Amino acid sequence: MNMVELIEKKKNKQALTKEEIDQWIDDYCHDLIPDYQVSSLLMAIVLNGMNDEEIFNLTDAMLHSGKILDLSKIIGVKCDKHSTGGVGDKTSLALCPMVASLGVKVAKMSGRGLGFTGGTIDKLESIPGMRVVLTPEQFINNVNEIGMAIIGQSDELVVADKKLYALRDVTGTVDSIPLIASSIMSKKLAAGSDCILLDVKYGNGAFMHTKEAAIRLAETMVRIGERFDKDVRAEITSMNQPLGYAIGNILEVKEAVNTLRGNGPKDFVDLCLSSGATMLLQARISKTREEAIEKLKETIANGKALATFRQFVIAQGGDVSYIDDLDKFPQAMYIHEVKSLKSGYISHIDTMGLGMISMQLGAGREKKSDLIDPTAGIVLSKKLGDKVAKGDVLLTIYTEHPNTSELISESLNAFDFSNDEVTVPKVVEALVSYDRNTKEFIITEE
Amino acid sequence: MNMVELIEKKKNKQALTKEEIDQWIDDYCHDLIPDYQVSSLLMAIVLNGMNDEEIFNLTDAMLHSGKILDLSKIIGVKCDKHSTGGVGDKTSLALCPMVASLGVKVAKMSGRGLGFTGGTIDKLESIPGMRVVLTPEQFINNVNEIGMAIIGQSDELVVADKKLYALRDVTGTVDSIPLIASSIMSKKLAAGSDCILLDVKYGNGAFMHTKEAAIRLAETMVRIGERFDKDVRAEITSMNQPLGYAIGNILEVKEAVNTLRGNGPKDFVDLCLSSGATMLLQARISKTREEAIEKLKETIANGKALATFRQFVIAQGGDVSYIDDLDKFPQAMYIHEVKSLKSGYISHIDTMGLGMISMQLGAGREKKSDLIDPTAGIVLSKKLGDKVAKGDVLLTIYTEHPNTSELISESLNAFDFSNDEVTVPKVVEALVSYDRNTKEFIITEE
Repeated sequence: MNMVELIEKKKNKQALTKEEIDQWIDDYCHDLIPDYQVSSLLMAIVLNGMNDEEIFNLTDAMLHSGKILDLSKIIGVKCDKHSTGGVGDKTSLALCPMVASLGVKVAKMSGRGLGFTGGTIDKLESIPGMRVVLTPEQFINNVNEIGMAIIGQSDELVVADKKLYALRDVTGTVDSIPLIASSIMSKKLAAGSDCILLDVKYGNGAFMHTKEAAIRLAETMVRIGERFDKDVRAEITSMNQPLGYAIGNILEVKEAVNTLRGNGPKDFVDLCLSSGATMLLQARISKTREEAIEKLKETIANGKALATFRQFVIAQGGDVSYIDDLDKFPQAMYIHEVKSLKSGYISHIDTMGLGMISMQLGAGREKKSDLIDPTAGIVLSKKLGDKVAKGDVLLTIYTEHPNTSELISESLNAFDFSNDEVTVPKVVEALVSYDRNTKEFIITEE
Repeated sequence: MNMVELIEKKKNKQALTKEEIDQWIDDYCHDLIPDYQVSSLLMAIVLNGMNDEEIFNLTDAMLHSGKILDLSKIIGVKCDKHSTGGVGDKTSLALCPMVASLGVKVAKMSGRGLGFTGGTIDKLESIPGMRVVLTPEQFINNVNEIGMAIIGQSDELVVADKKLYALRDVTGTVDSIPLIASSIMSKKLAAGSDCILLDVKYGNGAFMHTKEAAIRLAETMVRIGERFDKDVRAEITSMNQPLGYAIGNILEVKEAVNTLRGNGPKDFVDLCLSSGATMLLQARISKTREEAIEKLKETIANGKALATFRQFVIAQGGDVSYIDDLDKFPQAMYIHEVKSLKSGYISHIDTMGLGMISMQLGAGREKKSDLIDPTAGIVLSKKLGDKVAKGDVLLTIYTEHPNTSELISESLNAFDFSNDEVTVPKVVEALVSYDRNTKEFIITEE
């Protein structure tokens, strides 16, 4: 294969063949082609796109660049979920024990946070003792016994993605639906579950800025799933404000545990119920959405979801006394209440801005090698549509950094106010699935 | 400067500022940014283009990445010429002595051949003894005394171009008008002449395939010249057949010398007269095109152009006895006449194909490090529009390679025939210049 010819093809808007894509990914994994040729090809893909066949072939080539997990020893329907990333997104912490307590098998690999987005693995590690590396046997046994296990991404899966993503990150080639879809789906397919629920976030705190772009990404991933004979469904959810009130690792663990205790923020509970219902339908545990939602409410009310979470924490070495008494978690040295200088109804929240502030407070990473501070973050007191009087506490910041006056001013600028009441849209806006009979996408607006 | 932000800007079709372009070129020359970021940016430039201001700033940044020649010690108007490259293009060898003999000062840097195109430096070096490296003093003295000197590209000029071109060559980012224009013009501006004549070739033996693309490139370069206060004009010339009959280094030197003796092929003479007339007008030696053409015909007829060429060869160490007796040049070991299998009027010649065959015969380089054979090449017996009978000699190949039967078949396939007479277009199709008063391009169709 001549790599320059391949670049020229994509530059001239021609489709790459399966053989060309296979060779590119294989050669790149074996360091046979230089980064500068791959980044040129990636930019041509960003600007000229890929057709369905190319996206399928790219996903397949990436999938086969590493190991593929064999979960056949897990009894029951294995469901995975994946969020495209947002601010305050602690969904896995509550959702996984909810569905696991109802019989769904959740064998999940998660990532770490970078930039304005958090990562489930960082959140779990803020529970003292919690291990996110298990042997394959432990992983499978835990899922069989408890219903769930969550571990970090294995370096042995989808070797190509790690290399490609590192290159995309520094060459301005992240925001491409074919590249995002093949990256996510190759990892989810390699992780071996039967069903996959995708949470495709859009808005000012997400990688996708518009609902239309989110739907296109969702459709692309659902279609890839169909090609691989997997039941893949996608929710389109709003990230125009942080999810729940808490942003930051310990702060989010507490909010997730409170949700499992029945005291969750409305938007976060709504998302968990919707996602959980879809997963129960995918696993064929429920027959209707309504029935599924009832079951999910029940597993919170009767404490089973929380019990599953406790078992999960214990099984992965975590000190469950922190879950039982959330006040045991360490607190940040500096806690500042930030009060509103204006009054009115909150009409806009710069969600990515708050994510970046939280990162700068110590909750996230600017570079992969940065250390995070589990106590740092933000807890909102008010959200979109809330009525605020001048002097009301808008948010509280938690940090070990002594000088945060600039970040405090910035956090105030993240809010816009209106004199009129503001209608707050639902969190889950639509559900994208694929009908095998009609071969059409079904987009259900919630 | 954050290189990723710069890439993102161009990806999103925004214009780069002068500061951003300066920093990019400067950092790249100092190895402060990696190739993989530059190639991603280059692909974004190829696909999203650059506006006039960006192209000017890029040319300026590249120009200042190395030394700029000071030709102020040369008395008279310094005119440079540049061809975008073609097959059988020996124009400089005849044109430079023609105009130099009439008072134009030609202080020229030329390149080597690569792929299907030849290079003036390779052709000159096929004359025994000829040196293409001179000290700055020798270079200036020769131009003052003889009217011309031709040397190889200096590594000290436009340092950025060498690095960028090497990267473009292996990343599918060669064919971009902003990148081609800034590369050519930065080199020509660094070479220090007052006027520049550009020969922008188009057709099946040129980098630009259509006349429209050639005109766009020409306009872009003429506009850059205007911004740098230089008189830049461009000819649009056809490369839908080789220029003249000879392709290959010694073969082309012979054809150029014969042209100076008054026995040149019509298309090649036409090009030299047209280019020469423009240069005489640029140098203000002639007042009208007609007067200039008369002078050029005269300098061939009275032997002055040939005398200038002889002086030039002697001054650069060449053995002028080869020029006086062209039969002294060595001949290739194998000489094959290739006879037509068809009859009719030649309606199409695969010019790039013939350039590649000539390269494979030994006349050119596939890679920069390849050695060339000065005796190798092709001499056509027939050109576009010529009537051919089956069995007529179409071309003669010259090579040191014993097995060339495949190349001979290929050379036959380079010709298409028609039963009807074929109209052959002129070599010089248009002249692009810029009117400073009206601030408009003038495109004169020849």
